[in-house]
Amino acid sequence: MNIDLNADMGEGFGAYRKGHDEELLGIVTSANVACGFHGGDATIMHNLAAHAKERGVGLGAHPGFNDLWGFGRRTIQMNARDLEYLIAYQIGALQGLAAYSGSPIRHVKAHGALYNMAAKDEGYANAIARAVHTIDAKLIFVGLPGSELQKAAEKHGLAFAREGFCDRLYSDDGSLMPRSVAGSVIGDPAAAAAQAVRLANGEVITATGARLKFQVDTLCVHGDEPAAVKVASSVRSALEEAGFALAPMGSA
Amino acid sequence: MNIDLNADMGEGFGAYRKGHDEELLGIVTSANVACGFHGGDATIMHNLAAHAKERGVGLGAHPGFNDLWGFGRRTIQMNARDLEYLIAYQIGALQGLAAYSGSPIRHVKAHGALYNMAAKDEGYANAIARAVHTIDAKLIFVGLPGSELQKAAEKHGLAFAREGFCDRLYSDDGSLMPRSVAGSVIGDPAAAAAQAVRLANGEVITATGARLKFQVDTLCVHGDEPAAVKVASSVRSALEEAGFALAPMGSA
Amino acid sequence: MNIDLNADMGEGFGAYRKGHDEELLGIVTSANVACGFHGGDATIMHNLAAHAKERGVGLGAHPGFNDLWGFGRRTIQMNARDLEYLIAYQIGALQGLAAYSGSPIRHVKAHGALYNMAAKDEGYANAIARAVHTIDAKLIFVGLPGSELQKAAEKHGLAFAREGFCDRLYSDDGSLMPRSVAGSVIGDPAAAAAQAVRLANGEVITATGARLKFQVDTLCVHGDEPAAVKVASSVRSALEEAGFALAPMGSA
Amino acid sequence: MNIDLNADMGEGFGAYRKGHDEELLGIVTSANVACGFHGGDATIMHNLAAHAKERGVGLGAHPGFNDLWGFGRRTIQMNARDLEYLIAYQIGALQGLAAYSGSPIRHVKAHGALYNMAAKDEGYANAIARAVHTIDAKLIFVGLPGSELQKAAEKHGLAFAREGFCDRLYSDDGSLMPRSVAGSVIGDPAAAAAQAVRLANGEVITATGARLKFQVDTLCVHGDEPAAVKVASSVRSALEEAGFALAPMGSA
Repeated sequence: MNIDLNADMGEGFGAYRKGHDEELLGIVTSANVACGFHGGDATIMHNLAAHAKERGVGLGAHPGFNDLWGFGRRTIQMNARDLEYLIAYQIGALQGLAAYSGSPIRHVKAHGALYNMAAKDEGYANAIARAVHTIDAKLIFVGLPGSELQKAAEKHGLAFAREGFCDRLYSDDGSLMPRSVAGSVIGDPAAAAAQAVRLANGEVITATGARLKFQVDTLCVHGDEPAAVKVASSVRSALEEAGFALAPMGSA
Repeated sequence: MNIDLNADMGEGFGAYRKGHDEELLGIVTSANVACGFHGGDATIMHNLAAHAKERGVGLGAHPGFNDLWGFGRRTIQMNARDLEYLIAYQIGALQGLAAYSGSPIRHVKAHGALYNMAAKDEGYANAIARAVHTIDAKLIFVGLPGSELQKAAEKHGLAFAREGFCDRLYSDDGSLMPRSVAGSVIGDPAAAAAQAVRLANGEVITATGARLKFQVDTLCVHGDEPAAVKVASSVRSALEEAGFALAPMGSA
Repeated sequence: MNIDLNADMGEGFGAYRKGHDEELLGIVTSANVACGFHGGDATIMHNLAAHAKERGVGLGAHPGFNDLWGFGRRTIQMNARDLEYLIAYQIGALQGLAAYSGSPIRHVKAHGALYNMAAKDEGYANAIARAVHTIDAKLIFVGLPGSELQKAAEKHGLAFAREGFCDRLYSDDGSLMPRSVAGSVIGDPAAAAAQAVRLANGEVITATGARLKFQVDTLCVHGDEPAAVKVASSVRSALEEAGFALAPMGSA
Repeated sequence: MNIDLNADMGEGFGAYRKGHDEELLGIVTSANVACGFHGGDATIMHNLAAHAKERGVGLGAHPGFNDLWGFGRRTIQMNARDLEYLIAYQIGALQGLAAYSGSPIRHVKAHGALYNMAAKDEGYANAIARAVHTIDAKLIFVGLPGSELQKAAEKHGLAFAREGFCDRLYSDDGSLMPRSVAGSVIGDPAAAAAQAVRLANGEVITATGARLKFQVDTLCVHGDEPAAVKVASSVRSALEEAGFALAPMGSA
């Protein structure tokens, strides 16, 4: 039983640092690398691609809105074609830096507000899927199970990795509780680990205590929370103890 | 006798337009496309790659400093490794957009202050050459004949296209007269055409009237001058009348 | 009977030019100057403030979202406090440049998507009004009559200038027809002039032919349309022929 | 005997944090606030102006090059007039945010590469001094003693605060040893404190052990080094023990 553990990385910019890339590269199996628009820059991308290769971590693009100040977390309405090319640009840029280590990009996951908007917006979801498909039809498209992202992946013939979140509470309909709701972010490493194992086993316990079937291929741990490294480490250990083999998505 | 005619293109950004891309695509044989840092954006890059393909114009990357306000014309001192990755990022991004039309990138030419600095600075020249070589060792590297750019191309085993300028006065040492010197920009279409034919024939008459041997593979016309289209058109006609076949650089 | 004619200006950035500032400064009575976030830069702001002073044109700030690529036309959801400080920043910056000519800022008008969003969104409208009030409680706040912008101005004790649009069709409810609707932008100088005179007289004829009461203090002509100068010139002549005295808003 | 202790602050941007603003505000007497170009944003500037007021810390503008990626540390050649307006823009923007707390700006200190370039470049130094003088001729201009910055201040009739550095080695000619030289940054709190007391007493011991006369009005502690808070705290204690009264520059 394989499961992938992914984290967003490379979110600094110039003199700014963010997150815990070095430690997390020793724990996760897939890295979603910011591509210079909401965060990230060429040097950071180069270094992460090289380190991911060294440690056998799967390399992925993590494109977002062109909104550095808002760190890609602001909801932005824009033309779907412009968005599509923005995504293709970012994936291409990461390919350029990944050429140094000969480490091919394996997956693409939209960042922040774009991820959330595209999960519900057919136009945005298809724009991203078209960009991914045009660049490389073998790339794995990562997103929320059952969302417009999954539909767009299927429409364009892309492999889709269903993503679960170790450190976020779920609503009864399978969506994530908004961050603004108290308690919706799970900061306790043990609690996150327990949810990770449950998700890997195909279910989740929602905020109301309901048990929900929920198939996932990859589990996300957030990289920029203060406890990120402890949570990721605890999640990995629990998954291994539960008998799961951790491996980059699509590596089966 | 083949000669290439190149122009910088795609220099707008968002709502901003600049230059005369549409008209020039019908005249030149190689397009140097801005890659989003000193100018250019993903949509513009996509559209130019598609139009270049339709018209048989050779597609090239035109990377510059990360300086949109200064349009890449400000002299900036930076770490050579950071610069190298910045260049690789931009070339990769254009490859991402060129994937839409299946039009491969054929050449790379540095933009503005970066071109001028790298012509004299071994560190900068080698940074660009390393980026080009890493992304695709078959890319043609464009630059001033005899400059550090040419030396870096040779050092890295890259094909080098020696560039001449139709609309700029030359000094006796083969360098360009600075723009700040009155008369250094040739705005008259007939004069530019005459210089183009002379350059294509392997010589140039300098500002002092001296005759200089000067071998070139590609001739640049500037795209953002008011008379750009007339100059380019006049240059092309004169070259054809003089018996030159216009073809993208590297096209046998 | 006084009426003000305003236009958005200073919308270039670095090497990019946009609009027809020079010509329009000879026609309009109020200039809304972009403040560097959706367009505009320090040099452009300085020069416009100086030229506005020379020509007796009222100087105003035209703050927008921090979205240069989108030219402030993309709808962006953000925290109202952050927005408020963003506005204060931009007004302060223009004050800094206006210090050169000793030309005080007289009014503030939100730009693009921010104008449209704030017209309907109480939170955004109050954020802008708070920023204006904090910087200088004597500044005139410009906006759509009857909108949340007007309510926010009244709540904060700011003078409000009700704005009409010479070159846009109105719906029966007094709102502007979306630009996406064919014919919603009036490009014919004579038609724009006729609408301007009607608006100055306190009414407008809507897209359905209905006659609507509509009191305005200032009339906007758009500066970046190809026919902008002709439209503005025609509007000004028609207003003068109809007996209106053109004067900057608030000049009693 | 009064002495001022200053630190660069507010150097974050959007989701990025940098430095130790909260702790340093309890130690220093003057805050140099980044103004949004090399770092800083409107919300950060607002909050710092408010907190500086609460704690009796003197508020200053810390303008830099428009180079967020390079954090204002890259050497950039640009037109002096453009630079001047860039500086005026940034000071004006901080004034806009400082209006919230009614805390007037007391001083201006150039940031990073701009500080170093202007110390030696008459054109740059005068550009900054003109901007400062135009905005408010009572602002104190901070810079290296004996540099072009001091000459420009005198030429424009600005009060000048001579700055010393607690945590940097000096050369025999009174200039700072480049950061690239090993040992040029003093990370040890006790050593920095000793140098601070010596500087406050009008001398410094250089890298070669020579004793140099060196009059200063304000002492800088760097805010973004890991040991910044310990160094600043140690410097303050040592100055107080040596009998100096710490007070914002210009406070009589």
